Order: sequence, then structure tokens, then C-alpha cells
Amino acid sequence: MKIFDTEGFPNPARVRIALAEKGATDKVDFIAVDVMGGEHRTDAFKAMNPDATVPCLELADGTHISQCNAITEYIDGHFEGPSLTGTTPKQRAQISMMNLRAENGLLNAVGTYFHHATPGLGPDLETDQCAVWGNRQKETATQTMTYLDEVLADNDYLAGAEFSVADITAFAGLAFADFAKVEIPESLSHLTAWRAKVASRPSIAG
Amino acid sequence: MKIFDTEGFPNPARVRIALAEKGATDKVDFIAVDVMGGEHRTDAFKAMNPDATVPCLELADGTHISQCNAITEYIDGHFEGPSLTGTTPKQRAQISMMNLRAENGLLNAVGTYFHHATPGLGPDLETDQCAVWGNRQKETATQTMTYLDEVLADNDYLAGAEFSVADITAFAGLAFADFAKVEIPESLSHLTAWRAKVASRPSIAG
Ligand SMILES: N[C@@H](CCC(=O)N[C@@H](CS)C(=O)NCC(=O)O)C(=O)O
Ligand SMILES: N[C@@H](CCC(=O)N[C@@H](CS)C(=O)NCC(=O)O)C(=O)O
Repeated sequence: MKIFDTEGFPNPARVRIALAEKGATDKVDFIAVDVMGGEHRTDAFKAMNPDATVPCLELADGTHISQCNAITEYIDGHFEGPSLTGTTPKQRAQISMMNLRAENGLLNAVGTYFHHATPGLGPDLETDQCAVWGNRQKETATQTMTYLDEVLADNDYLAGAEFSVADITAFAGLAFADFAKVEIPESLSHLTAWRAKVASRPSIAG
Repeated sequence: MKIFDTEGFPNPARVRIALAEKGATDKVDFIAVDVMGGEHRTDAFKAMNPDATVPCLELADGTHISQCNAITEYIDGHFEGPSLTGTTPKQRAQISMMNLRAENGLLNAVGTYFHHATPGLGPDLETDQCAVWGNRQKETATQTMTYLDEVLADNDYLAGAEFSVADITAFAGLAFADFAKVEIPESLSHLTAWRAKVASRPSIAG
């Protein structure tokens, strides 16, 4: 099993944390993709992943899976260890819902701000900017932080009592927010406490 | 089990098709939400679903699940019948990936065009438009149609040999495209043939 990714980038981080949670990091070969050099937009890469993004998983039979949520489905089902995506229909639905809220409302909103309303990855890669939309997505990110803080006032983790992929997605979203200089309001004390707790997990703290 | 939704709208249609595929339509009470009247933006509705969207599922224990993908997870796990989300890790990952491509690249792209670059649901509801972004998303939708056509040149359904939630999402995306007057190029013969095949399923044709 191979993962084509770029270390230190927020979406690759989601899959690396998921693998570490399953104790499976050493069962995967990581192949570095030069995103800054535009390697993910070459025809060779797009033949594997038409989304032209990292990460991308390659199975032993040559199948390619992109999109962190899809890759995490594979990892969670294939490897032993505590479930990240839930085991009952209700758990699976709650985790899926909170994961989507964290992804669309926070991680992708920060990403859209970063790529559209800041220099982003630089002029060679950001050829298609839309600043007005990017700045709105920054507001969406801040609103989502406030919403997640409210959820965490009543729950240990985003989808309830157990750590899940929703926490991974939101954690990566906050890391991306720091990088893109989207402020995380200090008043959001539940979010801040949850972030410190997640950061201390062996899958992240090492 | 209750579903709060608005008949005829594209996202509610996804869940209604999923229920029909599982033979479970008559096991759910549908509660009409007056989206055109703004009911989904009231505090009462947002207490159930902070996303302020339809559909929203209510379980017997009072739990609320929004987001079609999350609702479909619940429906697929809870009811008997052929799986819509896959049974092996590889199937689950492939279906999840194709479903996300259909959702983000087609259904949500058409939705963003409709809500931001056309009169959408009218001036009372479309208070936050961004036409430049909406028009770009129309281009994304067209590109995704071309991509899906290529996939369907080699596969009976979007995630391989079996019908799945990815097909439901793309089918709803094409219906929304018709409604929003986003043209489906006639040259995309695989997409058109697949659409006719899906439209004839009892879950859709009735
Ligand atoms: N929704 C995708 C997002 C992947 C993504 O956007 N990855 C970024 C790196 S964090 C990327 O490849 N960016 C390339 C670019 O912006 O051109 C996923 O879940 O994998
Ligand atoms: N990603 C959401 C989308 C739901 C959605 O946007 N639903 C539309 C109806 S098709 C809606 O509620 N629109 C209300 C509005 O635009 O204010 C899902 O999967 O449920």
C-alpha cells in the first residue's frame, strides 16, 4: 500500500493521523509529491487522481483512492484498532455529519480563503483566484469554530464520547487556520481545550 | 423515524431515492418544511439542524442527523436490502470517493451556480450572492459531467459494477442541472445512457 502525499500539508496530515491511530503508519510506503513544483497537476498524477490533489492511496492491486474521507474509510476498515468512522448506523451517521461540518465549514473554508484571498501557494499555482469568495469563506470558518465550541461544551469529542475522524478533520482545519492566519478566537475555551487534548494523542504528539 | 424535507428539491430527492432503494419509504414519516417561506432558517429548525438545510432525519430517540451522506449512512445500515455505501473497505472507499466527486463537482457546483449566479430561490432567501464564484462553479459542473462520462465509458455505474449512493448523488445533480438550466452536453453519450438507465429504476420511476 502506497500513499502519494506531501508531508506537512493539511489534507495529507488527516490521513497520516488516521494511520497512526490505527497503528499502521509503518505498513504504508509514502511517496513524496512535489506540490509546490506542480507535480500533482501533471498528466501522470492526474491519471491516478483526476482531482489533482494529495493525498492519494494506491492499493496493492493498483486501485487509486483519493479524497481523505474515502481513504480513511479504507484505512479504518482494513486495519485493526478502534474505529474512526463508527460501528453502528447511528454512530456512523453522527460521525459522518460532524466530519462533513468540520470539512466544509472549517478545513475547506480555510483552504478556500488561503487559495483565493491570500498569495496561497504562489502565483504559479494560484492562477484562478476569487478573493471575494475567499474572504467570505474565512467568515464561514470563524462561524464554524464557534459552532464546534458549542458542540464541545457538551461532548468530549465532536461526534460524542469517542474520538473519531471528525476530530481529525477539525484538528487539521485548525492547523490550517494557524498557517493561513485565520484567528481562532481565544474565547472559544471548549475548542481550545479539546485541541490541546487531541494534540497530546500519541498519533499526533508522537 | 421522521424526515423533515421539501418534496421536489434535489437534496431531499437523494434521501428519498435511497429509502426507496431499501424498500423503506413507508417506514418514515415525512414532515414538510417550507423552504420558500424560510422555515429552515428559523431558530426552531436550526435547533435540529444548524446547517439550516433540508433534509434532516429525526431518530426515535430524538437524535437529529443532517447532510444527505450522513442520513444515507444511517438508512443503509439500519434497513435491509442491497448496500448503497459498500460492504468491503475497498468498495466503501471507491463509493465514498465517487460520491464526493459527484457531490462537490456536480450537485454542489450546480447549487452554487443556482444560488449565487441566478435569481435562485428569490431575493428574500438569496441575500448573500457572489455571481463570479457561482459562474465558475457552473464551469466546474460541466467539467465534472465530462469526467463522469469518461468513468461511465468503462463502468456500468459510477463506482463500478453496482449501483450505489454515488449514482444517486450524480442523478440528483443532473436533475438540478436541468432545473438550473446548466446544459448537459449531448456528446456525453455514456452519461446520457446511464441517466436513462438510473431513471428507469423502480426507486425513481415508481
Ligand atoms: N478534499 C480533498 C482535498 C485535498 C487537497 O486539497 N489537498 C491539497 C493539499 S492539503 C492539495 O493537493 N492542493 C493542491 C493545489 O491546491 O493545487 C481531500 O479530502 O483529499
Ligand atoms: N450538503 C447538504 C445540502 C443540503 C441543501 O443545500 N439543501 C437545500 C435544498 S436542496 C436547502 O436546504 N437549501 C436551503 C437554502 O438554500 O437556504 C446535504 O447533503 O444535505
